[in-house]
Amino acid sequence: MLLVLAKNILRDGCREEFLAVAKLLVEGTRKEAGCLAYDLAADQENENVYYFVEKYVDAAAFAAHRASEHFQAYVPRLNDYRTGPSQVTVCEVEPF
Amino acid sequence: MLLVLAKNILRDGCREEFLAVAKLLVEGTRKEAGCLAYDLAADQENENVYYFVEKYVDAAAFAAHRASEHFQAYVPRLNDYRTGPSQVTVCEVEPF
Repeated sequence: MLLVLAKNILRDGCREEFLAVAKLLVEGTRKEAGCLAYDLAADQENENVYYFVEKYVDAAAFAAHRASEHFQAYVPRLNDYRTGPSQVTVCEVEPF
Repeated sequence: MLLVLAKNILRDGCREEFLAVAKLLVEGTRKEAGCLAYDLAADQENENVYYFVEKYVDAAAFAAHRASEHFQAYVPRLNDYRTGPSQVTVCEVEPF
């Protein structure tokens, strides 16, 4: 099981536009067969910092996510509203 | 809904001891009424970096977690195996 953290730093004044596109990405991703969880979370201490927190059955499911139509359609549009691409950390969930 | 990221940097050679105590904390926390998810995830690019990724119904549930017996019992023991306390980021999940 993979757990992915994708830190996004927004450009000032772009929150509403970012959230509108992010919502579409979240809705599409949650329908993916291999996606176990997919949330966008707002850092409570840094108003321009958001994290996509994502859980996939395995690496193949994560790859399928990145190849999906919604990913290909919306991620480039998110780039318009953030200071740079996501800072992505890929983790393996401990099997407790 | 709260999503909490707790970054842990382990001291060299302490992984097995850290995981043994962390497992007890994970098992106890997953039984909490207000806990929606609680995972320990190993950063695939930094062998000493682990994240507790936690989701709670609300702030009160997160407070109950920190007041719980298992938190009080095990978190101090985790300190023996990491370079410092968790680096905690508290986030609010976007209601998509």
